[in-house]
Amino acid sequence: MKPYEGYMLDLDGTVYRGKEPIPEAIAFIHQLKEAGLPYLFITNNSSATPEEVSLKLQAFNVPAEPAQIWTTALAAAAYVKAGPAPHTAYIIGETGLLQAMEEAGVEYTEENPAYVVMGIDRSITYEKLAKAALAVRNGAAFISTNSDKALPTERGFLPGNGALTSVVQTATGQDPVFIGKPEQVIIEQALYILGTPLEKTVLIGDNYDTDILAGIRTGMDTIHVQTGITSLEEIEQKPVLPSYSIQSMADWTLMKNSGEKSSKK
Amino acid sequence: MKPYEGYMLDLDGTVYRGKEPIPEAIAFIHQLKEAGLPYLFITNNSSATPEEVSLKLQAFNVPAEPAQIWTTALAAAAYVKAGPAPHTAYIIGETGLLQAMEEAGVEYTEENPAYVVMGIDRSITYEKLAKAALAVRNGAAFISTNSDKALPTERGFLPGNGALTSVVQTATGQDPVFIGKPEQVIIEQALYILGTPLEKTVLIGDNYDTDILAGIRTGMDTIHVQTGITSLEEIEQKPVLPSYSIQSMADWTLMKNSGEKSSKK
Repeated sequence: MKPYEGYMLDLDGTVYRGKEPIPEAIAFIHQLKEAGLPYLFITNNSSATPEEVSLKLQAFNVPAEPAQIWTTALAAAAYVKAGPAPHTAYIIGETGLLQAMEEAGVEYTEENPAYVVMGIDRSITYEKLAKAALAVRNGAAFISTNSDKALPTERGFLPGNGALTSVVQTATGQDPVFIGKPEQVIIEQALYILGTPLEKTVLIGDNYDTDILAGIRTGMDTIHVQTGITSLEEIEQKPVLPSYSIQSMADWTLMKNSGEKSSKK
Repeated sequence: MKPYEGYMLDLDGTVYRGKEPIPEAIAFIHQLKEAGLPYLFITNNSSATPEEVSLKLQAFNVPAEPAQIWTTALAAAAYVKAGPAPHTAYIIGETGLLQAMEEAGVEYTEENPAYVVMGIDRSITYEKLAKAALAVRNGAAFISTNSDKALPTERGFLPGNGALTSVVQTATGQDPVFIGKPEQVIIEQALYILGTPLEKTVLIGDNYDTDILAGIRTGMDTIHVQTGITSLEEIEQKPVLPSYSIQSMADWTLMKNSGEKSSKK
């Protein structure tokens, strides 16, 4: 257990399960806050705004300001804004994505956009998919917030953004740039925001195929918690293991670097 | 040029291009009718009813009764009806598919269907896709009328049924049974309807990847017409060639079998 200086935490399966908080994780986040260690919540969810996510977390008694939430919506907006101008985009998505794009200064347009950005949209229509397909065939850069195939809900697994994105992918023959975990884009942005060095930052998550893989690809240490999707048995089958796999964050003793001061956000 | 006894014809790119008739093909179909040779139009379109397709063809002066139209909607309905009971299905599609299923005696249900059938639906919603994904995960047999990735329209290439189907495919990890060309299902049904022997039946189409491949897979002779999607140059790159490739049906001389009477429908 190394004295990490920066912490990235996944949300669903790590801090809560649907509408149920995970007390061990919440206690650990309070320790982080008390120790003055910087932490950031990283979520593949693009539908909610940071304000909405922070309110949900606060309702679970998790200390979380909007500035500590990094969604794929914010990540996709930052990615487009960092790309070549003009920053015009045809956007399929919900409030979180539309707001993130607007706040980043990306102009929404249906006419000849430079980018097509897709996030989960539970009001998807054929016309929206058609516009996206035409724009991508017309040369727009194709961005998708995340490749999640299915969304766990109370009704069962519903189509995720990766499934909706596959319509435009199949219709155009073009693969999008995915921004969310397990891609590195969102993690590299998060490292920059945390301001801690790669080797002193750790990523905590329950899902090997998104969270842990994103950390491994970025070259970070990772903590797998057995509170969500991926079981310990499944972890043991993987060719590259997380740095740690623990039952819950109650099994983690927070160590502070004794030799030097922890960096602060 | 063999004296075939039965003829299958593709529609778009073969008999017409969008709203434009192809005169050489239409003249050939009149020859078929005058010679008393049975012919059937085979289309991957599941949205229109046979009555609608026949009216469109008649407007182009093509002799075509509804009974001479075999759509993927009819083919999918026949496939479900031939499968194990109960013949209950959750159906995503337009009038052609809904009517074909009802007329075949397949019962539409959203509750615990034995089959999920997907055809192009330009009124697609997230809720429809969610219901399909839940039913497939729950064990329903997954059928899709056709795998066409993109639909040529006046606006450009819009998402085809294969693209919409990929949502449920991606969300569930289950591949559907595709019914339309290039699969054999629809062609084998069409052979049965024509009532002519495989070796004396020919399939005429413009699209190598759907029409010609379907004929090749079924073991039939095929005539590629250079009036639509696939060019002669593209044909020459293919590992398995059609039996013939001609500029248009004007290059085809209809021969009648002199030794025996042609079978009639």
